[in-house]
Amino acid sequence: MSNDNQNLSVAVLGAAGYVGGELLRVLTTHPNVGEIVATSRSNPGAPWGAVHPALAYERARTFSDASPVEAAQGADVVFLALGHGESSSVMPEILATEPRLVIDLGADFRLSNEADYKTHYGDHPHFDLCETFVYGLPEARRSQIKSATRIANPGCMATASELTLLPLAAAKILPERSTVFAVTGSSGAGAKLRHTTHHPYRAANMFNYKPLAHQHEAEINRLLGEVAGRSNTTRMIAHSGPLVRGIHATAHIVCDKTRAVNVPELYKTYYDAEPFTHVLDAPPALSSSSGVNHAYLHVTQKGDEVLVTCVIDNLMKGAAGQAVQNMNIALGLPETAGLTAAGFFPY
Amino acid sequence: MSNDNQNLSVAVLGAAGYVGGELLRVLTTHPNVGEIVATSRSNPGAPWGAVHPALAYERARTFSDASPVEAAQGADVVFLALGHGESSSVMPEILATEPRLVIDLGADFRLSNEADYKTHYGDHPHFDLCETFVYGLPEARRSQIKSATRIANPGCMATASELTLLPLAAAKILPERSTVFAVTGSSGAGAKLRHTTHHPYRAANMFNYKPLAHQHEAEINRLLGEVAGRSNTTRMIAHSGPLVRGIHATAHIVCDKTRAVNVPELYKTYYDAEPFTHVLDAPPALSSSSGVNHAYLHVTQKGDEVLVTCVIDNLMKGAAGQAVQNMNIALGLPETAGLTAAGFFPY
Amino acid sequence: MSNDNQNLSVAVLGAAGYVGGELLRVLTTHPNVGEIVATSRSNPGAPWGAVHPALAYERARTFSDASPVEAAQGADVVFLALGHGESSSVMPEILATEPRLVIDLGADFRLSNEADYKTHYGDHPHFDLCETFVYGLPEARRSQIKSATRIANPGCMATASELTLLPLAAAKILPERSTVFAVTGSSGAGAKLRHTTHHPYRAANMFNYKPLAHQHEAEINRLLGEVAGRSNTTRMIAHSGPLVRGIHATAHIVCDKTRAVNVPELYKTYYDAEPFTHVLDAPPALSSSSGVNHAYLHVTQKGDEVLVTCVIDNLMKGAAGQAVQNMNIALGLPETAGLTAAGFFPY
Amino acid sequence: MSNDNQNLSVAVLGAAGYVGGELLRVLTTHPNVGEIVATSRSNPGAPWGAVHPALAYERARTFSDASPVEAAQGADVVFLALGHGESSSVMPEILATEPRLVIDLGADFRLSNEADYKTHYGDHPHFDLCETFVYGLPEARRSQIKSATRIANPGCMATASELTLLPLAAAKILPERSTVFAVTGSSGAGAKLRHTTHHPYRAANMFNYKPLAHQHEAEINRLLGEVAGRSNTTRMIAHSGPLVRGIHATAHIVCDKTRAVNVPELYKTYYDAEPFTHVLDAPPALSSSSGVNHAYLHVTQKGDEVLVTCVIDNLMKGAAGQAVQNMNIALGLPETAGLTAAGFFPY
Repeated sequence: MSNDNQNLSVAVLGAAGYVGGELLRVLTTHPNVGEIVATSRSNPGAPWGAVHPALAYERARTFSDASPVEAAQGADVVFLALGHGESSSVMPEILATEPRLVIDLGADFRLSNEADYKTHYGDHPHFDLCETFVYGLPEARRSQIKSATRIANPGCMATASELTLLPLAAAKILPERSTVFAVTGSSGAGAKLRHTTHHPYRAANMFNYKPLAHQHEAEINRLLGEVAGRSNTTRMIAHSGPLVRGIHATAHIVCDKTRAVNVPELYKTYYDAEPFTHVLDAPPALSSSSGVNHAYLHVTQKGDEVLVTCVIDNLMKGAAGQAVQNMNIALGLPETAGLTAAGFFPY
Repeated sequence: MSNDNQNLSVAVLGAAGYVGGELLRVLTTHPNVGEIVATSRSNPGAPWGAVHPALAYERARTFSDASPVEAAQGADVVFLALGHGESSSVMPEILATEPRLVIDLGADFRLSNEADYKTHYGDHPHFDLCETFVYGLPEARRSQIKSATRIANPGCMATASELTLLPLAAAKILPERSTVFAVTGSSGAGAKLRHTTHHPYRAANMFNYKPLAHQHEAEINRLLGEVAGRSNTTRMIAHSGPLVRGIHATAHIVCDKTRAVNVPELYKTYYDAEPFTHVLDAPPALSSSSGVNHAYLHVTQKGDEVLVTCVIDNLMKGAAGQAVQNMNIALGLPETAGLTAAGFFPY
Repeated sequence: MSNDNQNLSVAVLGAAGYVGGELLRVLTTHPNVGEIVATSRSNPGAPWGAVHPALAYERARTFSDASPVEAAQGADVVFLALGHGESSSVMPEILATEPRLVIDLGADFRLSNEADYKTHYGDHPHFDLCETFVYGLPEARRSQIKSATRIANPGCMATASELTLLPLAAAKILPERSTVFAVTGSSGAGAKLRHTTHHPYRAANMFNYKPLAHQHEAEINRLLGEVAGRSNTTRMIAHSGPLVRGIHATAHIVCDKTRAVNVPELYKTYYDAEPFTHVLDAPPALSSSSGVNHAYLHVTQKGDEVLVTCVIDNLMKGAAGQAVQNMNIALGLPETAGLTAAGFFPY
Repeated sequence: MSNDNQNLSVAVLGAAGYVGGELLRVLTTHPNVGEIVATSRSNPGAPWGAVHPALAYERARTFSDASPVEAAQGADVVFLALGHGESSSVMPEILATEPRLVIDLGADFRLSNEADYKTHYGDHPHFDLCETFVYGLPEARRSQIKSATRIANPGCMATASELTLLPLAAAKILPERSTVFAVTGSSGAGAKLRHTTHHPYRAANMFNYKPLAHQHEAEINRLLGEVAGRSNTTRMIAHSGPLVRGIHATAHIVCDKTRAVNVPELYKTYYDAEPFTHVLDAPPALSSSSGVNHAYLHVTQKGDEVLVTCVIDNLMKGAAGQAVQNMNIALGLPETAGLTAAGFFPY
């Protein structure tokens, strides 16, 4: 372990998945990171490049077969990129190794209401631990993240939805019921083969999924409700699109309360100091966020109507990038460390 | 001209565009169609296949350089697939040739309110003719289409939005204000080169366009208002997606009036007799509608919430296919004539 | 069974796969086909549309759970769209039902040399039956197909390669060694989920597979050798591309023997009477063949060099479409029956 | 100007094109680069992000309207990313400003034979200058690049073809005539709108272009001939594929001279010390090179046959990335400076 933020020792649990791969991509070029232990149950001993082809030039790096606890031993920072429901079972042991920071990228520690958890994810072996985790959306929880040692990284669809509505919630002009339409790429469903991510099926297709029942609504409503100071009911209507990366979120708010406010200015002011969240003067192109931690938004206002669009990369601002942003904040590093590489255009 | 519906003589004006190409594709295999005069200002004399590669096997067919009126002379049916605003200027002359049926695929004759037209499209040289055209959405206007000699074919985004909300409007339980979230493929923007349909830009991208200002809202609101028997305000939030063909429309309706109704059954009953509009038991896949005139819908209901999704092919049910369906109805042919070829899976 | 080619009774074995789905798509609109028994082990009783979304409008049709022999009983024509190696084991029983015509779309009956078969596919339980099957490439074997009752339908990559080189072989100016460079879409790998057809992996990717070892070379070399009247060694270099449908084949022939011949004219003459194979004056666009049974070629000649390109749809001219073309020829129907629907542009 | 390689002042001429955008992306995070003057005739004064959406977070950077010479004044390094034929006319004036290094990314200074230039590109106003430029393929010309002040950066298709054949040429076992099959993405055709890069046309398409006449063959043959010590004739058969980024090159060499050599080992040895060129043990996936300067190769050998595949990003190793690699070598910087960011997987 290091105390001076030089050569941080990092463990990435579940590094053979897509989110794990993104963590490796970012962390290998992070100026404050030294050793990286990347565990994989499915590919122990394999070179990183055998699983993540874009890391093929890292000829000497291989996946560790260490157990979660073994990998956590001596690590300054532990990232858990395991399947949903898996981090809760290993968490007590990992916490016992006393790393400086634990960041869980699963859904296990994002909720405060056990009934909500049960509805969407089933039983939780250690729900009491949830209250010790900070919800890692910097745009809403930066001050808590600064002093956090345990962070629950938000879900990808949740991040996009929250950034879309957050300034309205903070200004107390978000209606109690709202709708976000979101389209996500196939990488959001992970590396596991599925019928709906079979290339012949997905390549020129689009379809709605989990109608009126997406599990990310619970964390969206927790956060926006806390920020707004009242209960909140946002429906996130999820669609699968013919994209690999990215989430495009759109909210059409019809509400008299917004009439008195210049909503585009509200958003620009709210996000002005954010290093990764930007309000543009034209609707953002999804691909401008691909591969990077930036979120781009646009707001149109007309009478009692507000239209907000937001684009993020589901694996970056929606997962690995935001996790590193959270690490930077929690350890007192520059918030953009390791996250300065520009996206590609065209993508 | 023929009176017995054998070997109908057909003129397609503007046949080198995407909608024109679809009309040629459908009409060449239509059992009741004989001669086809396909005009193109940009490609007179060229083989069809030079412009529409999928028609390359039609080695002997070429585009005509006839003027609109020349092409209409002696035609039983005249399809106008011109640029928006062009059909209104040539329409009086075309009507003077007295074809049995005229179908305009542009926006020029879809509206009943001249101010609405002016807002979205500018001046109209012959707005008084609009009232002589029947709006060609068979699911709402079949009886008028049966006796029509002039049909205004609906817009592609309008067709998808209208099919999404029509049963609610007819049952008088559609709220006066509603929102449809729609994603369209690049073919909707036509064969003309544009920055937003440049392959490097569009291939892995998605973005909102014409925020709170899409021109198809006018015809949607005209139709749904007439059906509902009151004024109607539907916002259609338009997005461009990384698709070539297809529109995916989603509406999330929150309304106490729907509580007492089994909305999925309402939709199934409403569309039960339709040959091209089908209510499925699971969310439809966009690609199931690609290349064909079928629309597929799905309805989810929960408390006071209704979620409807609808997919169509913008060039078929959203343009050329619906135009041929309208021709079939107006001439008393089997409604599916020429439109029986199945779509491809995978697409 | 029918003897007059009206209302032919057809069995499709393995109808839930991609090739099976294409057979259903084509056969349902084939003017001479009546009853269709479509068997599926994986989806007995399911509606066709549950497996092939583009057939969702066929609300009443379902898969049969009949065994291959049960399905073949009383069928005029039996199509086998089973996994490679499966048709050889059931073939004797199917032949015993004495259908008018059996068409196998697998690789089991395409080769004349048992050692070749063994190298690429393993043991064959009834290799002696192979010589009773006609190789179903109409452009090379039409006269034999006319009197055939058993047809081995060519492989998709083989069809593209053979059409690319056939006129040179027939003119005895194809060098004994040649190379075809081919790119295929993901549907060629079938409906079974695979790592290389996972959407996130395949969507913007391309890679070579089975280097110097593709199994279709055996049937290519058999056919071209027979046509050329000497042994033939064509390497087919196979690539997977970011396409769903289609094969693009390119051959660069450097050979003094071609100097004295006008090769573009040779190709045009050779294919002139073909209803589905066309030599164009410019390089063909792959998508012009998507969904249809047409093959498009182009030839460039310069000094001792010849460059030939050929595009087909792997599921149509490369499988189901060609199988129906073969049925039409063998039964004395119009060769294009059921195959007249045009492809889509844009696709 | 700086002499110590800190805060290098850089001019990018033609920065609004795709190659220019990639140069900006790389140079903004290059540790040795300070001021960047990015000129654009088409977008003077516009924010970078208005043209290159992935740079939208660089809120304060704008394009300069400086003329080429004005931009070059005081610059340590001048990159010319102009249209082919444009850099030759401004080059004398730029050289007169005496920058430490000039790198031309166009075709104007790559050839040594004026007749070849004329055949492919037309007249050249200053062909005598060509001999003062070093051809910037580090894998073949690193020692000359080290002392160069003027570099002609290779073409994208040329880079892929050269890397594919270079070890055979250097080992004197490349046949005098060879063929490379290459497939390129749409970004290779640039930001200018074209029919063949219109999204509806390109999205699911593939086609051969410039058959037996691609202009990059001239530089390929110059380099490979010089390396092999004899004249060389490589045909590069160019195809456009449904990709945005990337080139996949394949060469099938049939040659008795290779029998005595372990060709996979030859390639591994030849490229072993290269920081950006890697020989893998399995065929490379194109997307592993997307967005980065890495080239990945694979070699299969069987009897007298060798199959080599190579993938690069046309805008990076094929243009901007290689230009920065050349800058690093010429200025004595670490060769990977500014080029260490990993690619994305999935892409």
